[in-house]
Amino acid sequence: MAEIRKDLVKNHWVALANDRALKPCDFPIAKKKIHASELAEFCPFCLGNEAFTPPEIKAVRAQDSLPNEPGWDIRLIPNKFSAFSLDNELNHYNKGVYSYTNGLGKHEVLLETPEHGVEIQDYDLPKIRGIIKLLKQRYNELSLEKRIKYIQIYKNRGMLAGASLEHSHSQILGFPFVPPENKGMIDYFQEKGHCLLCDIIKQEKELSPRLILNSEHFIIICPFAARFSYESWLIPKRHTEHFGDINAAEIEEMAALLKRFIGAILTGLMDPAYNLVINTAPVNVEYKEGYHWYMEIIPRMLVAAGVEVATGIYINPVAPELAAGILRDNLKSL
Amino acid sequence: MAEIRKDLVKNHWVALANDRALKPCDFPIAKKKIHASELAEFCPFCLGNEAFTPPEIKAVRAQDSLPNEPGWDIRLIPNKFSAFSLDNELNHYNKGVYSYTNGLGKHEVLLETPEHGVEIQDYDLPKIRGIIKLLKQRYNELSLEKRIKYIQIYKNRGMLAGASLEHSHSQILGFPFVPPENKGMIDYFQEKGHCLLCDIIKQEKELSPRLILNSEHFIIICPFAARFSYESWLIPKRHTEHFGDINAAEIEEMAALLKRFIGAILTGLMDPAYNLVINTAPVNVEYKEGYHWYMEIIPRMLVAAGVEVATGIYINPVAPELAAGILRDNLKSL
Repeated sequence: MAEIRKDLVKNHWVALANDRALKPCDFPIAKKKIHASELAEFCPFCLGNEAFTPPEIKAVRAQDSLPNEPGWDIRLIPNKFSAFSLDNELNHYNKGVYSYTNGLGKHEVLLETPEHGVEIQDYDLPKIRGIIKLLKQRYNELSLEKRIKYIQIYKNRGMLAGASLEHSHSQILGFPFVPPENKGMIDYFQEKGHCLLCDIIKQEKELSPRLILNSEHFIIICPFAARFSYESWLIPKRHTEHFGDINAAEIEEMAALLKRFIGAILTGLMDPAYNLVINTAPVNVEYKEGYHWYMEIIPRMLVAAGVEVATGIYINPVAPELAAGILRDNLKSL
Repeated sequence: MAEIRKDLVKNHWVALANDRALKPCDFPIAKKKIHASELAEFCPFCLGNEAFTPPEIKAVRAQDSLPNEPGWDIRLIPNKFSAFSLDNELNHYNKGVYSYTNGLGKHEVLLETPEHGVEIQDYDLPKIRGIIKLLKQRYNELSLEKRIKYIQIYKNRGMLAGASLEHSHSQILGFPFVPPENKGMIDYFQEKGHCLLCDIIKQEKELSPRLILNSEHFIIICPFAARFSYESWLIPKRHTEHFGDINAAEIEEMAALLKRFIGAILTGLMDPAYNLVINTAPVNVEYKEGYHWYMEIIPRMLVAAGVEVATGIYINPVAPELAAGILRDNLKSL
């Protein structure tokens, strides 16, 4: 059974299937598959292999093509290895000192392209807009499901960012509770009476050493307390709580910015693994003011060491002010 | 200047030097140094290279040998690349919306052996006892420094556990505040009136599928909500708040257990990177009941993906109950 377990020492939550174990030899790192491109393995996300994935939820595909057959350009499918399902209500259990819930939730994979080895920086702009539109649409659909309380959109690119398949894809995960990570923005609003990210935009958009780019609808900065080296945030200037409320003009600009900026990250930082994650407001919970969605672009240049794992305090060997300068130069030289 | 910065969105703390940046090409992963043993680089931790480290703080060494010269068996030195120092009092600063402190703290490295390529599972027992004794001694010395509030002992073994040097070593880091991670044990004590880890020992020591080993002074278990695959905890049965209060009988047994168990991890899990981290009570803060020190042994089979980085919720592909079974078998077959 899938369970979401609480660690009482550090208040972490962990999702797992209580009857399943990846064997030591099946971990990609144990197999030394650090650089996925060295492999020529079968890829279930490639054109023609639709039967090897669960049936598609929706797709952008040629009008005369059939679901789960070739002809698609973007394809949304359930995550085959997910520990989450919506088969039940959320139930809380105790086992002596421990507490846990069933693995309620929804976990989906967005295949961005039928073509293996092509990625965001290579896509044309209509395609990137199509991906953002489909993510928005799905975000809004999932937010209608009352048992889902938080929708996490993310992308793992490269083994060292947690990707298990090389073929370019993103993921959407609906959680049955609000992750404890996201409360800082509400606390700030309650204390100050205004939005934290709006205040950050005000402070960063002019003459800040952490500013990478200031465009019509977004800024890109290296955040003041970046956990990861060269971590960058893409923040919409318009105060918008939910990613699902992104508008057409923002989608258009975000697509162009992502193509350029991901390109700069890959060429300037020696082709690193990276994550994209979208922070957004919770859904289906009591309304609280202060959320403002944004995207984190996180090159994974180092792995978390013992000190980070133990204390949650990060040591970052790159000052965000200097990282922003390097990334600004990378953008210009593109 | 070294700073400890607060991220207001997620309430993380990050330590960094505001004038320093590791360049993209200097990251070990960018250099594809995933398996450090492929290198034959100069090692500052090797016998004869004492002049390439900062002067030693203390050492276990031959009676007729001089500090910072050969003749040592275990050697404690300042961390050369630390962002922490005790030059000042703890000062809080604001920069517009942001807040930070100076990098007050103490960061030291324990060279476990003068011999390159020899590790815990290879050491003889007196040597492992010597390492634990020296860590205990240093823990108690640092706890006399009133500006230090928490002492984190940890070990990074292998690049994928965050090690930048292959030569076997551990680290001690004194923080100027208590990491937010460690409050669960106090909350539990306040609510229930007894110690969380003592309750866990009671529940796990008999017939639990998560029990790996039950010896006179310790149990080793896979924790119920393991964040990491094959994560294991070594817990002293005696209710002891501070690692610095470990006694001679416990040191003797812990040394033997570590040698055996690390051996089982390395052979059974295909030579993974791993961290050792010691969770313990804070020092020099208002006394609160409920702490109980223990050691986490964390094989790093996977890296944290976008979902973990974004939400702090972990997905673990190995059920702790099954991991414990595999590790029990590994121990037996040693």
